[in-house]
Amino acid sequence: MLGVLGGMGPMATVDFMEKVIRHTPASCDQEHIRMVVCSAADIPDRTAAILGEGPDPLPALRATLRRLEAAGATCIAMPCNTAHHWHAALQAGTPLPILHIADAVADRLGPPEGARIGVLATTGTVAAGIYQDRLALRGYACGLPDTGGQDAVMRAIRLVKAGRLAEATAILRREAEALAAAGAGAVVMACTEIPVALAAVEDPLRACLVDATEALARACVAACRPGTALAA
Amino acid sequence: MLGVLGGMGPMATVDFMEKVIRHTPASCDQEHIRMVVCSAADIPDRTAAILGEGPDPLPALRATLRRLEAAGATCIAMPCNTAHHWHAALQAGTPLPILHIADAVADRLGPPEGARIGVLATTGTVAAGIYQDRLALRGYACGLPDTGGQDAVMRAIRLVKAGRLAEATAILRREAEALAAAGAGAVVMACTEIPVALAAVEDPLRACLVDATEALARACVAACRPGTALAA
Repeated sequence: MLGVLGGMGPMATVDFMEKVIRHTPASCDQEHIRMVVCSAADIPDRTAAILGEGPDPLPALRATLRRLEAAGATCIAMPCNTAHHWHAALQAGTPLPILHIADAVADRLGPPEGARIGVLATTGTVAAGIYQDRLALRGYACGLPDTGGQDAVMRAIRLVKAGRLAEATAILRREAEALAAAGAGAVVMACTEIPVALAAVEDPLRACLVDATEALARACVAACRPGTALAA
Repeated sequence: MLGVLGGMGPMATVDFMEKVIRHTPASCDQEHIRMVVCSAADIPDRTAAILGEGPDPLPALRATLRRLEAAGATCIAMPCNTAHHWHAALQAGTPLPILHIADAVADRLGPPEGARIGVLATTGTVAAGIYQDRLALRGYACGLPDTGGQDAVMRAIRLVKAGRLAEATAILRREAEALAAAGAGAVVMACTEIPVALAAVEDPLRACLVDATEALARACVAACRPGTALAA
């Protein structure tokens, strides 16, 4: 049973679950993947902690992982990119495999030769180097917004969490286009709030966006139903 | 922490969670309601069991309730109308309050004097009399589709579970319009798959539809955050 360490934010967790369901080949309830989901919305802000401006979320992440274990989860996913700063610490404390969202993204990218990958993420994810480090291991170089652009991305992410989608969409579209214009062959939506805001964006931008939430959802379906062809 | 006994079907559970989040007044993650959700997609078909054509889902419902208790839930909701046939049996086995979806619906209806309420539901929900009994206690009379109409509603519900939304929408719209034309002042979408299919329907039909999923979501927000004004 898939355990989802979620609530960061709550709507991003719902978006993730929908993507797991959509990528599962099923014609009735009973063919779907069983999930237990903790929407632990009270986990302290991950970016604030990485920047040294807020409390450590690790105790709350660990407590939520315990709840998932108690409920019977056998494999864990965290639909929050920034929380992956604590991936190794969490993995060290559980026998259950915790899928890594950046690995799931790397599995969806084309060949790495000379490819520059744009990354739209929280300031915490960028400061912690989560994508820079993990994608470098697979041969990719990361392109990031400049300081003003990064501040705008973070502001947009907070707008999504507050339900102000239209304002967030305008900002994120502009920053994604700037990364593509600067030479990124693909732009990763590396915060789970971002695909919620960019769900309706059209080509040509659409074609170069990589949805980290969807990549993790596909990895979960593959892990929970090995050997099954994914639904398109 | 709200415990959601879900997975019946999986997409209906996601729809329910989204409605809980949307009706919670919150401007950041930490203001949202904590939830633990079991998407127990393997619970046997509820309608088949009520009609004597399939295995009893009560043991699987009870096992899922145990998982929610183990994870720390303090209040339970089931976003599946048909599963409420086992509401009393489940409530008898747990100290946690289990909200009743038909009571949540009744709380959203206008004054009962002479009001006839149309009910679109699974054949199991209709055969078990879940809405007829519960709404009669509050002074409402139920209007139901005729046999051919009920068969069509059940077919449409299965189409939603299989991801075939457009076909389901056409059938459900026709059956809802028939109930309204037969004198129902309101038509309850009393299966959690139905609002997924009728999400985009317009007035005048829209105005007379009552979404049982949304009613349950509002009741959960009120139960988990007493004294808080609901978001519109």
